[in-house]
Amino acid sequence: MKLDKNLNILIVGLGLIGGSYAKGLKDQGYRVSAIDKDPESIAYALANGVIDRGAAETDLRLVEEADLAVFALYPHVFLDWIRKYGAYFKNGAVISDVTGVKSCIVYEIQRMLPPGVEFIAAHPMAGKEVYGVKNSDPSIFREANYIVVPTDANTFRSIEMCKAIGSTLGFRRISALPPKAHDEMIGFVSQLTHVIAMCLMTCSKSEHLVDYTGDSFRDLTRIARINETMWSELFLLNKYALLSEMEGFMQEMDCLHDILKNEDVEGLKEKMRLSTARRALFDKKKDGKDETL
Amino acid sequence: MKLDKNLNILIVGLGLIGGSYAKGLKDQGYRVSAIDKDPESIAYALANGVIDRGAAETDLRLVEEADLAVFALYPHVFLDWIRKYGAYFKNGAVISDVTGVKSCIVYEIQRMLPPGVEFIAAHPMAGKEVYGVKNSDPSIFREANYIVVPTDANTFRSIEMCKAIGSTLGFRRISALPPKAHDEMIGFVSQLTHVIAMCLMTCSKSEHLVDYTGDSFRDLTRIARINETMWSELFLLNKYALLSEMEGFMQEMDCLHDILKNEDVEGLKEKMRLSTARRALFDKKKDGKDETL
Repeated sequence: MKLDKNLNILIVGLGLIGGSYAKGLKDQGYRVSAIDKDPESIAYALANGVIDRGAAETDLRLVEEADLAVFALYPHVFLDWIRKYGAYFKNGAVISDVTGVKSCIVYEIQRMLPPGVEFIAAHPMAGKEVYGVKNSDPSIFREANYIVVPTDANTFRSIEMCKAIGSTLGFRRISALPPKAHDEMIGFVSQLTHVIAMCLMTCSKSEHLVDYTGDSFRDLTRIARINETMWSELFLLNKYALLSEMEGFMQEMDCLHDILKNEDVEGLKEKMRLSTARRALFDKKKDGKDETL
Repeated sequence: MKLDKNLNILIVGLGLIGGSYAKGLKDQGYRVSAIDKDPESIAYALANGVIDRGAAETDLRLVEEADLAVFALYPHVFLDWIRKYGAYFKNGAVISDVTGVKSCIVYEIQRMLPPGVEFIAAHPMAGKEVYGVKNSDPSIFREANYIVVPTDANTFRSIEMCKAIGSTLGFRRISALPPKAHDEMIGFVSQLTHVIAMCLMTCSKSEHLVDYTGDSFRDLTRIARINETMWSELFLLNKYALLSEMEGFMQEMDCLHDILKNEDVEGLKEKMRLSTARRALFDKKKDGKDETL
């Protein structure tokens, strides 16, 4: 299902993701306006047809007219914005977001909005190593997952509209998870992997051995270049889930450490077979074809 | 410096790496013979011009005639072979290898060979996720590191000849490390990364969360499909170095765990900045251009 073409769509925060949302929607003929504190981003987006209307200050007309608003801000900025301007949304407006952590903001945002204005959270699992609306590119959504994160307070209508954002932008797979399950999943597949990449770069060895790295080390540290302002906020907001994923991973490595220490060859091979089988299944799931061969 | 064109070159073990050595040398007009226990591999290599002569049993004429022999066998098979046939090499012959671990074999091989036959170890840090001479492809060496691993017993002549193998095959970077330093390096950049990829796949979470994985998880587990016979042997032969690298990594993750637990935001950002800076430097070192942007 795609979004209704008559909706007034507002994007708040016109960075890489907000910009890619705006561009993807505008390219398909939707009416898109945007608010961003940076006048240059708004000017660029207007000049390049990324949005129809835009404002560098919070223009209350754009807020009042919005049928659907998507927030692409740092979590604490998102909370501040809703605290200040949330009351200006019209009755029936649907609010969504792109925030990478959920439990810590979803209930708070829902609590702050006036009755008749519904917040339905979503997480587009897409990104690039570059920033800003100038790098916006809706093709980053094509291979990515889009997760709707509803609570008991959400209605069928807003959940469907939220899914329609994902469909309209062309995400490969659209699914739904409650906030807690979402945060645990993100703690594992995204935050833990960034922690691992970081630890490989920050542990004492990496400084001296960089000359000898091959593809394996390169693959495992590709995401070690990390925006410390955004990621430290995301890590802290998902602290308990991430700590628990780190503990689970270290426990598994401890187990492998003992297997190796005891020269338990069969135990070692068993772990290798399990790893191989799971990764092979995972390759198969991706478009039904094997990507590693 | 390239290898002398008049050398009789023998490859023992005609799998992916042995086959790629043979092909790379034969393509440049070198005389290459091979021994492999699998008659089909030899037949394929002869039929497709990968080698000039070949034998599926150990043909002592090929051994006696070799000026340079390169062993591409599992470590324990390599040791057995030298124990049985090492005495048949002629005076002045130079022996090299492609084994991924060194301390545990280099001194033993040198001890077993007759006087006048010199073993100089090398490690081509290249590979593919496929096996056998049919997949051999010397282009895998182009972006790879080639490491000569000399001991005090090696002569200048054999070290130079060993480096010339790497140059002739077109490796990107040729360097030298003593056995212990080599094994520590491999324990970190190759074996630890495989351990991490495995643990991500074998810890309990991965079974359920495979549907949500994005590029990060995909990158970090690409090498989790692992040949358990070869890798369990390599892990065990490098046990102490690998255990120590695993401990160093877990210590770093423990440290990050405490930083997060204590909500030490500045400490967290500091680690992120260090990780980013080191990875950026590392991108720069590769051909002087940034590969992630």
